[in-house]
Order: sequence, then C-alpha cells, then structure tokens
Amino acid sequence: MGVHLAKGTRDLLPEQMIRRQKVVDTVTGVFRRYGFEPQLTPAIERIETLTGKYGDDGEKLIYRILKRGEGGKRGEVDLALRYDLTVPLARVVAMNPDLRMPYKRYQVQPVWRADRPQKGRFREFYQCDVDTVGTTDPIADAECLAVLSDCLKALGFQEFTIRLNHRALLSAMVAEAGASEMETPVLVSLDKLDKIGREGVDAELSERGLSEEARSSLWPLLEQKGDAALDYLEDNLGERVSEAVENIRQVLSLAHGMGVDESHLVFDPTLARGLDYYTGPVFEAVVTEPSVGSIAGGGRYDGLIGMFCKREVPAVGVSLGLERILVVMEELGMLNTAKSQSKALVTVFSPELRSESLEVVTRLRAAGVNAQMSMDAAKLGKQFKRADSLGIPYAVVIGPDEAASGQVVLKDLGSGEQSTLDLEGLLQKLA
Amino acid sequence: MGVHLAKGTRDLLPEQMIRRQKVVDTVTGVFRRYGFEPQLTPAIERIETLTGKYGDDGEKLIYRILKRGEGGKRGEVDLALRYDLTVPLARVVAMNPDLRMPYKRYQVQPVWRADRPQKGRFREFYQCDVDTVGTTDPIADAECLAVLSDCLKALGFQEFTIRLNHRALLSAMVAEAGASEMETPVLVSLDKLDKIGREGVDAELSERGLSEEARSSLWPLLEQKGDAALDYLEDNLGERVSEAVENIRQVLSLAHGMGVDESHLVFDPTLARGLDYYTGPVFEAVVTEPSVGSIAGGGRYDGLIGMFCKREVPAVGVSLGLERILVVMEELGMLNTAKSQSKALVTVFSPELRSESLEVVTRLRAAGVNAQMSMDAAKLGKQFKRADSLGIPYAVVIGPDEAASGQVVLKDLGSGEQSTLDLEGLLQKLA
Repeated sequence: MGVHLAKGTRDLLPEQMIRRQKVVDTVTGVFRRYGFEPQLTPAIERIETLTGKYGDDGEKLIYRILKRGEGGKRGEVDLALRYDLTVPLARVVAMNPDLRMPYKRYQVQPVWRADRPQKGRFREFYQCDVDTVGTTDPIADAECLAVLSDCLKALGFQEFTIRLNHRALLSAMVAEAGASEMETPVLVSLDKLDKIGREGVDAELSERGLSEEARSSLWPLLEQKGDAALDYLEDNLGERVSEAVENIRQVLSLAHGMGVDESHLVFDPTLARGLDYYTGPVFEAVVTEPSVGSIAGGGRYDGLIGMFCKREVPAVGVSLGLERILVVMEELGMLNTAKSQSKALVTVFSPELRSESLEVVTRLRAAGVNAQMSMDAAKLGKQFKRADSLGIPYAVVIGPDEAASGQVVLKDLGSGEQSTLDLEGLLQKLA
Repeated sequence: MGVHLAKGTRDLLPEQMIRRQKVVDTVTGVFRRYGFEPQLTPAIERIETLTGKYGDDGEKLIYRILKRGEGGKRGEVDLALRYDLTVPLARVVAMNPDLRMPYKRYQVQPVWRADRPQKGRFREFYQCDVDTVGTTDPIADAECLAVLSDCLKALGFQEFTIRLNHRALLSAMVAEAGASEMETPVLVSLDKLDKIGREGVDAELSERGLSEEARSSLWPLLEQKGDAALDYLEDNLGERVSEAVENIRQVLSLAHGMGVDESHLVFDPTLARGLDYYTGPVFEAVVTEPSVGSIAGGGRYDGLIGMFCKREVPAVGVSLGLERILVVMEELGMLNTAKSQSKALVTVFSPELRSESLEVVTRLRAAGVNAQMSMDAAKLGKQFKRADSLGIPYAVVIGPDEAASGQVVLKDLGSGEQSTLDLEGLLQKLA
C-alpha cells in the first residue's frame, strides 16, 4: 500500500513546525513594527485573474483546477492556485476602491508553482510579503529595504547583501547597447549572472543575436557597484537616467536613515529581477554563506493594479521566501528552538492515582502552563523517557506519598534533579 | 473590466483579519495548553489519498487539479485540494512509523469543498483541529471535549452545548429497530433532526422504507438525554451496549474532572455525525444563540489510519470551524479588537522636516513600537484624519519648534489631547 505526498510538497512535523513558527513570528513582528497590517486572500483564484501576469514561463507553472458543479464541461478549468501574493493584492485593491491609501498590508501564505523541485524549492511554498499601495513616495521603497534588513537581522543573519537596481536603468543600459527590441531576453540572460557567470551570460547573449559591439558596450555599464556605478551611469547615459539615478539615491539615503547598514545595501546594475511587472526600483537579498541564491526580493510595480481597474495605482513590495530562509538557517545552525511547546508531562503513577494526576494537569493548564498527561498504563521510567524524547523539560509525579500529603515530585529531565513541592510551588515554578 | 473572486471565497481586509487572528491565537493557545504540538501538511494531496474517505456525497465536493508537466494527458487529474485535516493526518501517521505515540498535534489550515455557499459557509474555509493518535485511552477523548469547552469559554461564549454520543450506540439503536442494513441512510436522516424536526426525519425514514413498527421502536430510544438516556439504553438494549455506555460514562467523568461544566456537556442519543470514518464517541458543539448549526465537531476514528498502512492505529480528534465561530462572534458583538495593530502615525510637518520624522519613527520601531510614517505631502489635519480612520490611536508631530528643542507633540486621536514630550518620554509612553 504505497502512500505518497504530492510531488514537491512536504509535511512539517512538530519539531520543524516550531522552528518555522519562530521564523514567521519574527518576520511578522518586523512587518507590524513598520505599520503593515494583516490581510488574507483565498488560495483559489479565477483563472483569468492570474493569466497574463507572469510571462510565458511563469504561466506554464500555474496549477489549474477543474470546474466543479454548475454543469461544467468535462475537463473545463475555471480556477487556479495562487502563484504569488502580489497579483491577488492587486485584485483586492481593484475590488475595494474605498481602501484608504497608502494601503500597507502584510500577508504570509502559501503559493503554488509546478516547478522542478530543488533544494529549498518546493511546489507549495510560503511567501511573506509586505506591500505599500497607492504612493510613489520613495519612503515606501525604502521601508521595503528596511523591513528586509530588519527581518534578516532579527533572524540572526550577520552577512547578507541587499542588491538594488532600477528598471529604467536596465532599460537605458540595454538601449545604449542598441538592443532595446531584445530587452526582455537580455534581462532574462542577465538574471542568470550569479549562476553562469559573465562568460555564460555573454555566450547566451551572443546566441540570442546580440553583436559583439553591443555586448562590449553593455559590459562596462555593468561592471561597477555602489555610488561609483551610479556616477558612471549618470556620466555615460546622461539625462535619460537622471530621474532613476536620483530616485535610487533617495531610496538609498532614506533606507540608511531607517537604520539599514551601508555594508548591507548596494546599488548593483546587474540585478535584473525576472518578473515582468516591475517598473521602478528592484531589489533582492542574498546571504553570503551558504549560497542558495536570493532569499527575498521585490520592487516597484506601478502598472500591475491598473490591469484590474481603470485607475493607475502605484505600489511597491518585498517578498521573503520562507523555505529558502529555513534551509539557510538550518544549515547554519541558527534555529535552536525547543523541540516541544509543552513545559511538563504529568505522569500517572498507577491507575488508582490517575484522578490525582488529572487534577494536577488541570490546575497547570488553568494557570496557563502547557502540559501533557500520560495516557495508557506504562512504567514511570517509560513515561520519563517519552517526555524526554519529545523535548518536554519536566515530569511531574504524584505517587501514594505525594497523594497523601498533597504534594508532587517535579523532575527536571535534563539534569535529573528532583524536588518535592506543593501545588502552589509547582505552579510558581512552571508558570 | 470585471474582477471577481472565485465563487464561495472571500478576502479578509486588515480589520477583519485582526479579529480573525485573535480567535486563532485564543484557540491555538488552548491547544498548546493541552500539550498539542503544531503540524503542517500541504494543501495539495494526491487524488488517491482523498478518494474513498468521505462517502459519495463528500467525494463530489473535492476540488481536482489538472496534472502538470511530465507529459500528463489533456484533462488528466492527479492532485486534489485537501478536504479536511483528518485524512492528511492519517497519511502523515502512516508515512512516519517512527512517530512517538500518543502523537498529539494541532493544525490550523484551510480546506476546500465545492459546496453550495451559505451564511458562514465558504468553499475555502479554515479548520482548527486537535487529534491524539495511537491510544484508545478515554483520557484522549475527554481532552477533546475539554479543549473544545476551554476554547469556547476562552472566546467568551457562555451558552453552548457539547453533545456526545457513541457510534456503537447508534448502531445498536438502529439494529433494535431492525434496520441495520439501512444504518447509513438512517443516520443521514437523523443528522437532519435539528433542521427538519422529528416529523421531518420520521417522514424521510418512512420514505426510505422504514416501517412504522421500526420507527416506533426507534423513537423512544432517542427521546431522553443525559444520564437518564444512558440508563434507558442500558436497560433496553442490554449487554450489547454496555461497553459503549461504560466508555461514554468514563469520558464524561474524565471531562468533568478536566473542568468541563456539567451544564455544557450532555449525552444525546440523537447526535449522528455525518462522516463515515467515526468508530467510537462522536460529539459536536452548538451555541444556543444565534443558531448557525454546529461550530465544532469530532470523534474517535480507529479505522481510518489503517486504510493507509498495515498497522491499526486508533485516533480521536476535534475540529473547530473558524468561519462559523467568527460569524457567531460578530453577530453577538463579541469581537472588540482594535482596528489597527499600529500604535502611532508619525506625521510629516513639511518636506524640510521629513528627516526628523524619519528619525523618530525609526527610534519607535527600534523600541518595538508598531508605527507608520506619513507618505506624500499632506496637510497635518489630513494626516490625523487618516490615522484616526485607520484606527491608529496616536499621532506624533515634529514641527519647527519641536525640531529645534528635540521634542515631539503626541496627540491622542481619541480624546484630542496633546502633550509635548522628549524622545525618551515618547518611547516610555508608547512602548
């Protein structure tokens, strides 16, 4: 009898789930600190909401759901699983014209992509998103960078880089190389720079038909980083980039004002985020070690919401990939959470003394202590062993002597130490 | 340009989501207090995991997903959306033979059913489940009742009833009426007792071919409640029910020992939970006002896990319906949460003074205060209005005088009161 998970999915058992919950709590705590409020959207969306938003390659990965009821034809599809949290947000904004702007929301929910499963990449995975809708103020862009930086710092990362670029600068660089009509494929190739290196990208650009002349005018524009690169682009591309350069300078300055370390944030003209819908600043975060690619990314998308309504509504946001972050943190040994959320196992000394144990566990729970009670008759040693292997730190024993004197024995399963306490003492110790 | 949600789904905007989050936090707090640990399973399951578990009527409501990639034929289906959290739990237990028993887990996740949408009933809805796997000890059954009672009390419900019955008693009653071969349809009819009343059920049973004699021997068994009903069944059905009656008496006694009020828990021989897989005690909770049917239910299912593996693994659990609970609580005005999770809006007095505001908001956030900062240039009054309408309780103003003296004005948007503070005073007031 073979039982299997759907390909590219996984279960999280308690120990893993407790670690994951800690990461989610840390991240949403930062989101709230920046004044983002929670929002929820359904996992299932009408298929026409998702199509035409993610490019051809993305669209192939959308899970489609068979039409149910209402006499749908055999094989007919009218629904799909959410592919990201940005397009559903755009739909929400379009459907709720009374939302007060700027609308700042966070959302932590799974998305689905029928992609090739890899390390830290699943077909069902969680995104942690913040977005600010309804303003072009660079404060909103800078807050995304600051949220990202604060999340990574709060999670315990020391070494990370947030790379920042601007879509208009990418366009201007491609135009300078005389390749404007090939902008999308050029950016798709450039997006692989980290994976296949400069030679690899150059070969791909050549294959795509970009002349040697074009390539040799493109590369110098991409070579520098930071302020020097901004100066270089301004000097070499002139007025057509001055607005974008000024925008990036403002965003950098505001982000620094919000406490983002200069060493963590760098302008990088080679950063080409894959998604079609970005229109302004784009950014992504990478941790230096271990190398798993980007663990978060985002940007400004001032055109997307307009695809759902007649209004033009600007927006900017950032998305953290929960599974990628967890893979990195586990590899770096950064997740030292307790294995169990229970503080004590109340053992049962013998069937006759079960009601005494029941009373103690009930009192503990009423006092807000997370506590388990042993089930089935088992030797005390076996009960201790079970608690210890589950990661429960304490065991409570009520034997005949304790029952007679109204006391309990508290055993620290780590040190093996035991102490005899009355119920008040037990509550004080564990609450 | 019509933009629509998938039928039977909805978005939750921040105000609703904050209320919902409070309910989830309350419920999971109780779950943890009883020593249940968190678990997560994917939304998408292989279709064969779900089929054959929910009866014909249930199975029709399963959402099916088109096969992706790997050369699937047009229209071929290999995945489905989770229909409940119990069957995936059974799969998890079957796939993880090393899980330490009893395995106590909680899970709060959405499930999907292509049902007719009604008040408080959606096609995508959240279940909050606890289950104890691997023991037949009635402590586990009693804990489900105590968890349920504690959840409802913690949420603020005063008037609720948990009805308790036993599958073996239902079978014996149906057998006593000579209708064993019709057990499932009889129980399906009986399940509608609350909706269509005794006459309605009687008419349905008659239509299904149950003789008047059978019906007149069935109804007296169903008429009483509580201890009297247990005594009556024992007296009239004899030994074949003594084990189940004793089991129910134990569960009742243990639940009372865990603090469940006698007035909140009643044995009710008419309770017939719809799902096929229950084998022992079954129970559900109803609130007296407003009447929305059951808001939680569960029972013992000792055969389900064995459908996935060669081992027989007993289990018992309870599931709370989040949307139903929210509908009732909103109708009763029980959810008086803040509209916003932000404590303050730091206004921008003028573009020249933006960096001062930036500094203050950054300090607030670093001190753990959830704070927004105004974007775009707007008059101060408009900024106050925005904060107030979002439900943010305080506004902070740094005008030229404050900037010069290193102080801020804190405005309580509820009372209109203003005070001038230095930064330390502001942090103390808001932290």
